[in-house]
Amino acid sequence: MQISAADIARLVKGELIGDGELLVSGFAGIKEAKKNELAFLSNSKYEPLLLDTQAGVVLVPRQTVCPGKTLIRVDNPSLSFTEAVNHLLKDAPDYKPRGIHPTAVISPKAKVASGAAIGAHTIIEDGATIEKGCVLYANCYVGHETHLGQNCLIYPQVVLRERVVLGNRVIIHSGTVVGSDGFGYTTVDGKHMKIPQVGSVLIEDDVEIGANVTIDRARFDKTVIGEGTKIDNLVQIAHNVRIGKHCLIVSQAGIAGSTNLGDYVILAAQAGLVGHIEIGDGAVVAAQSGVTKSIRAGEQVFGSPAQPIKNAFRNNAHIQRLDKYVEMIKDLRKRVEEFERK
Amino acid sequence: MQISAADIARLVKGELIGDGELLVSGFAGIKEAKKNELAFLSNSKYEPLLLDTQAGVVLVPRQTVCPGKTLIRVDNPSLSFTEAVNHLLKDAPDYKPRGIHPTAVISPKAKVASGAAIGAHTIIEDGATIEKGCVLYANCYVGHETHLGQNCLIYPQVVLRERVVLGNRVIIHSGTVVGSDGFGYTTVDGKHMKIPQVGSVLIEDDVEIGANVTIDRARFDKTVIGEGTKIDNLVQIAHNVRIGKHCLIVSQAGIAGSTNLGDYVILAAQAGLVGHIEIGDGAVVAAQSGVTKSIRAGEQVFGSPAQPIKNAFRNNAHIQRLDKYVEMIKDLRKRVEEFERK
Amino acid sequence: MQISAADIARLVKGELIGDGELLVSGFAGIKEAKKNELAFLSNSKYEPLLLDTQAGVVLVPRQTVCPGKTLIRVDNPSLSFTEAVNHLLKDAPDYKPRGIHPTAVISPKAKVASGAAIGAHTIIEDGATIEKGCVLYANCYVGHETHLGQNCLIYPQVVLRERVVLGNRVIIHSGTVVGSDGFGYTTVDGKHMKIPQVGSVLIEDDVEIGANVTIDRARFDKTVIGEGTKIDNLVQIAHNVRIGKHCLIVSQAGIAGSTNLGDYVILAAQAGLVGHIEIGDGAVVAAQSGVTKSIRAGEQVFGSPAQPIKNAFRNNAHIQRLDKYVEMIKDLRKRVEEFERK
Repeated sequence: MQISAADIARLVKGELIGDGELLVSGFAGIKEAKKNELAFLSNSKYEPLLLDTQAGVVLVPRQTVCPGKTLIRVDNPSLSFTEAVNHLLKDAPDYKPRGIHPTAVISPKAKVASGAAIGAHTIIEDGATIEKGCVLYANCYVGHETHLGQNCLIYPQVVLRERVVLGNRVIIHSGTVVGSDGFGYTTVDGKHMKIPQVGSVLIEDDVEIGANVTIDRARFDKTVIGEGTKIDNLVQIAHNVRIGKHCLIVSQAGIAGSTNLGDYVILAAQAGLVGHIEIGDGAVVAAQSGVTKSIRAGEQVFGSPAQPIKNAFRNNAHIQRLDKYVEMIKDLRKRVEEFERK
Repeated sequence: MQISAADIARLVKGELIGDGELLVSGFAGIKEAKKNELAFLSNSKYEPLLLDTQAGVVLVPRQTVCPGKTLIRVDNPSLSFTEAVNHLLKDAPDYKPRGIHPTAVISPKAKVASGAAIGAHTIIEDGATIEKGCVLYANCYVGHETHLGQNCLIYPQVVLRERVVLGNRVIIHSGTVVGSDGFGYTTVDGKHMKIPQVGSVLIEDDVEIGANVTIDRARFDKTVIGEGTKIDNLVQIAHNVRIGKHCLIVSQAGIAGSTNLGDYVILAAQAGLVGHIEIGDGAVVAAQSGVTKSIRAGEQVFGSPAQPIKNAFRNNAHIQRLDKYVEMIKDLRKRVEEFERK
Repeated sequence: MQISAADIARLVKGELIGDGELLVSGFAGIKEAKKNELAFLSNSKYEPLLLDTQAGVVLVPRQTVCPGKTLIRVDNPSLSFTEAVNHLLKDAPDYKPRGIHPTAVISPKAKVASGAAIGAHTIIEDGATIEKGCVLYANCYVGHETHLGQNCLIYPQVVLRERVVLGNRVIIHSGTVVGSDGFGYTTVDGKHMKIPQVGSVLIEDDVEIGANVTIDRARFDKTVIGEGTKIDNLVQIAHNVRIGKHCLIVSQAGIAGSTNLGDYVILAAQAGLVGHIEIGDGAVVAAQSGVTKSIRAGEQVFGSPAQPIKNAFRNNAHIQRLDKYVEMIKDLRKRVEEFERK
């Protein structure tokens, strides 16, 4: 659907500055938004972004000025943005399953709240509990005594093994496996003897997990994904890892056993972390980096093995100039030899 | 089965040169083929490959000469190779499902062409359309309004979310997820607010996709996999990526959001591409490379961050000699100090 | 559950040295064990580890001495450790399916041993054979003529394609695909023509495979995973790879086509191996390494491209000092120029 700037202003009770007939059909962050999209500026200190944005219409704090831009001034731009997004999507079709499909296999010892939706061929084992508002698509597996909080959304073919705990509003995409055994062995007489993995996994409120992710259960205790953390596709989370709140773990990253992440940590794509280290709050690991040591809060690292990002960039720049440096060395040697001959 | 060189010659109406009683039981590319395998040479400019090939029998253009080799001269070697391969495999058992299994759950609002095969427990949602000749194995999920062109082959446990479009002759291997939500958030008051992913995925004719691959739907528009492109296992394709025709994307490679690939691009295994860049036609990204900038047509890159492959090799060679260079520097310093003492 | 040191000593018929009332509730390797855990020392030559271990109680060879530590002396510490672990877990609940679920779809041409368990919605195709003691969870797919030896344990949503062979006591975690087509094409007139993948996969006794792993079938022959090898989550094994016995392949590693691994090889996380190379017995590939050449038995490599680990560490150390080296070169140049001016 499309909506005019004037209609958005009416919807969010804002003050329109500029062209009220401008139409938007989508929305995005202020850096990525295009001409026909709505964006927002949360804080007036970011006003310089207004000069560069392609966004057709921007929700802004009350005092904001940017001549030539179509703005809508509001008290709380982020809140108004959410309202406008929901409005833009209100006519989108809803493909979610409803009710309990007759082919679902639900143990009489499981508790499914009335109103929860269970798709075709989904299996709910003994002692599992599914709270109200949950939607499970087709072909899922919910193991024994696993708990889903309210309003979880589970796409087709997700496996939640036994005794996994999900908070409220958790979203899990297709093909993801939560609660598989950790990779733990003790080598006895040349054979790798399996160390039983009898812990569990706790996924807190508002976590979203992408497709074909693997999250292993802890050996004894629990693997934890903190509130509001978002995990992209094909990520590996090993046993006993603890991830804090509001982290972003991008596609194909991997975290080895017993490593702890603070809050607001970012792991870019294909990053790898060894086991038994600590990653401080707000730390950032660049793509493909291999982290072998603990990282302090706020630190940014890059490379394999990872180093502070400034060092990594400086070293990479030097590596690009090695040819020149080698020439310099050879030239110096020639000049020194000349002296020695004299 | 086995077949003699003479029988192959008869089959493809070619001219036999050499030992007609030589038996082959398989086939391969000319560089990989073994003694008991059939290969082909598409163009006489590659004749030098004949001297090195292990292949027992080679299909070649009409004028080709290679003393000591068993050759079959034909007008179109690649066409004849296809004929011979199909003949060699004609007695292989066919394990594909037939008809519609009684446990499949097919919406009365879906359209399944007569003759299409739907395996056990596969689910076809409202508005999905499956054209003639399609074969879907067991435990698949086909979402609302998703379209499969003619003769698609979908292995067990594939998820095609809603509104995905497949062309003709698309092959998808088990565990692959097409149309999961892109990884898109806007951070509002310290929380990552989900940006709805309401676009779709278009997979063109003759694409083959390996096992446990993830291909995300676009935010608004569509993620595109171009005609004839082949994707290996465990690859990640993010939202709004557009891949051209006849590309090869090898295992565990990943492409971040909104990056565009031209035609005939090759991404080797475990390569990673950042978002919002352009990869020109025929570009080659070596294994484990991390591409952070656009690449021109035909360019080859290697390393993390990726550089033109010649620079990367030269720099790597220098890195192997750093020990020696450091010795040279220290030696020069000593000699300079000696001068200075005098 | 908890158990006292004295009770463990009685259980394994060992000699208690130290505090018999000390309670343990878990177990681990001697380097990782914590205060409330049981560990073991297989060989008295590792006695120095006793000084550092946090383990509350340690099973040790008969003559071992370590003042202040609670030890239990036995003839065969590793065997006694296994006994104690089994005892500690004997009351753990068993979540495995039993019998054949009525929704399972089992071909009348398949053979399932009496006593084997087949979970809900699992599909067993024509000619498949499942030996006694096997447990298959829900939503699995077992293809035509695939064979499972005794006591295999297959978690939900595993795909075993046609003609795959599993030995005894094989464990496979959820979402794993065994026997998908290898990635093989021949380019004919600008199109990638599929080379049929008609081989199979052999998985020997006591192999364990993690979640969302992909193991491709061979082109003609077979892909082999040797006895006792353990494979972590999201690993890629390409067609015609042969892995020896008792290897450890850690998460997100990938092995390209036709590469052979000896016995006791370790591939750390996110390592990648090119095709057609040989990795000797006991070789170790460090995390994120990219192996482009064959590796001799016992060799350890690191880096991308991978080098002997000592060279890689030395070169990395040099790279960290490039800034300093460049300063040295510039300083030398200045001093040489000074000479030249005189």
